Amino acid sequence: MNKRLLMTPGPTPIPPSVLRALSQPIIHHRTPEFKALFSSCADDLKPIFATEQPVLMLSSSGTGAMEASITNFTRRGDTIITVAAGKFGQRWGAIGRAYGLNVVELTVEWGHAVTVQAVADALTAHPEAVGVYFQSSETATATTHPVQAIAALCRTRANTLCVVDGITAVGVQPLAMDEWGVDIVLSGSQKAFMLPPGLAFIAASEKAWAQAASADHPRFYFDLPAERAKQAGGQTVWTSPVGLIQGLRAVLDIMIENGGLAGLHAHHDRLARATQAGVQALGLTLFSQAPAWSCTAVRAPDAIGAGPIIQGLNDRGIKVAGGQDHVKGKIFRIGHLGWFDGKDILTTLASLESVLLSLGHEFEQGASITACSAVLSA
Amino acid sequence: MNKRLLMTPGPTPIPPSVLRALSQPIIHHRTPEFKALFSSCADDLKPIFATEQPVLMLSSSGTGAMEASITNFTRRGDTIITVAAGKFGQRWGAIGRAYGLNVVELTVEWGHAVTVQAVADALTAHPEAVGVYFQSSETATATTHPVQAIAALCRTRANTLCVVDGITAVGVQPLAMDEWGVDIVLSGSQKAFMLPPGLAFIAASEKAWAQAASADHPRFYFDLPAERAKQAGGQTVWTSPVGLIQGLRAVLDIMIENGGLAGLHAHHDRLARATQAGVQALGLTLFSQAPAWSCTAVRAPDAIGAGPIIQGLNDRGIKVAGGQDHVKGKIFRIGHLGWFDGKDILTTLASLESVLLSLGHEFEQGASITACSAVLSA
Repeated sequence: MNKRLLMTPGPTPIPPSVLRALSQPIIHHRTPEFKALFSSCADDLKPIFATEQPVLMLSSSGTGAMEASITNFTRRGDTIITVAAGKFGQRWGAIGRAYGLNVVELTVEWGHAVTVQAVADALTAHPEAVGVYFQSSETATATTHPVQAIAALCRTRANTLCVVDGITAVGVQPLAMDEWGVDIVLSGSQKAFMLPPGLAFIAASEKAWAQAASADHPRFYFDLPAERAKQAGGQTVWTSPVGLIQGLRAVLDIMIENGGLAGLHAHHDRLARATQAGVQALGLTLFSQAPAWSCTAVRAPDAIGAGPIIQGLNDRGIKVAGGQDHVKGKIFRIGHLGWFDGKDILTTLASLESVLLSLGHEFEQGASITACSAVLSA
Repeated sequence: MNKRLLMTPGPTPIPPSVLRALSQPIIHHRTPEFKALFSSCADDLKPIFATEQPVLMLSSSGTGAMEASITNFTRRGDTIITVAAGKFGQRWGAIGRAYGLNVVELTVEWGHAVTVQAVADALTAHPEAVGVYFQSSETATATTHPVQAIAALCRTRANTLCVVDGITAVGVQPLAMDEWGVDIVLSGSQKAFMLPPGLAFIAASEKAWAQAASADHPRFYFDLPAERAKQAGGQTVWTSPVGLIQGLRAVLDIMIENGGLAGLHAHHDRLARATQAGVQALGLTLFSQAPAWSCTAVRAPDAIGAGPIIQGLNDRGIKVAGGQDHVKGKIFRIGHLGWFDGKDILTTLASLESVLLSLGHEFEQGASITACSAVLSA
């Protein structure tokens, strides 16, 4: 009878209509029926990615799409600039080094956004850089980087791509791919797309596709030019994750019914502000200096630490995420991207109050609910 | 009201209990609950793969596991021997060439198994070969290669791995990894595992793991030594396809309840013989000289061609696969690996009789049912 509430920044809860779609009988991936399904999903993904470019689908986790965005658009020995402001930003550097790139890694204090100046300086120091690789929302710290301004810097240069991991940003917070001139945006199914993990998405600009022609890394499974050609006909090169694509159709229907991308932005902005207001009303501080709309990272009181708070919430049936690496035990992260609503935030805050009370933290009881409700009903 | 029967060699139909498992609420992949689920699946995969080695799970289609079995166990410039006896065998060569290997491709007439002598000769001619890469069951032609004998050849050589694509063989026909000394066996979820596509499996021998230490291809997403270390603790390096693993638990329960690997072998052997007997009773001939237990490839009468037969079956609600490349239009393939039973074969044969009758093929009406039933009730 203990209902579990998953409040992590991915996987995120799956709506009932999507669960039902996931339990449909399987269809064959080389049939007109599948091509129609796949193409309808591909069409409806474009406005969610804010692009006219095809949004390619890959059978992998988001990390596969990150790798593909390096191996398909760079050459051995190329220089790339990466932003390491958390665990996911560090992954860009690791992939680049694995493929023999010269990685210029901008290390940023966790919880902070990279400054546009730091990127501009790196680009000036490295005119040979073929790409700036970073996150729209660094999930490890719940922090938003200044995508639009960095894209503007890259736009002035003929051979530098702006490559954005939008795993926790697509369908969540503004990331206007075509309008801002972002060259590559990638994402994954288990975040705003409210599906199980295993389906990755990637879209690229004409500038990026031109650069792809000279990419020279060995590759086979993640061959984006081949996927681009094949997916135009409603099929993937390798076997599609058919079940997830059946589920994706149900997800896109929900997104369309709820106002499309504008509706998703309004929804996540509201949940983020409600969560932020709630935890701050308890005397807790946000870990991020530039909070993302996908999840909220909260500093635990020093005297308590994050561990007992996460455990206390878990005991009450609510799963939140902890911190990673050197912020483990110091922060906890409340996810609110995907299938969440105001009631989920209120429940989490009420339970957090209960936990903090039991742990001896001093605060005004009920304050988080009042603050959160004020945002939700505004 | 037109019930669809999917009789292709993958994706294969999904049992109801597995569909229900796929529609469970999602759980987080970094929790004790998930670790317990994952580890129980990993344990129960071992007997299905006939190995004591860990069976690693990857978030990809089977082709990803094929790539991983090259990039993790060879070095740039290495020589490998591949068996190209169909579309999937050709893929080994394509992957090897993409990664800068010297590929010695044994071209075999479609429908035939490679001879042990041909492999022995190639090994003699290429003492430097680090692996023989082939299929247990070449799905394009429904043909079984002599895995045990080829493994025996590789076993006599210190540095030559026997690498088997078991995508349509694991859980279907004999492939005694440890007993025969096969070094690498890989498979995918949408075949005998009765799941949607998107989860791949790979197991490797100690001999293979030793060779992995010196592999030097650039790689990141498919890093098997890293996966081996991480999966020992019940987690994957990258985000797991959680939904498919929830489904896999239900699949393994079915497999265990039905006699485990021995039960699966008996089941598929029976269905294969029943299908073969049925089509032959209609005066049709098998395309394969060494028929696999996973599916049956049937030559269409020259005067009719495969197209009208496949279309006629489709009109009657039964989806079978056609031929690929130069045998397109000449053969059709009836899948019977996974969640099939005798009734499915009988239905397919009865519908095939109806189609052939309408197309003017001369045969003894009812003969396929009689022949098939004789096998099923033996």
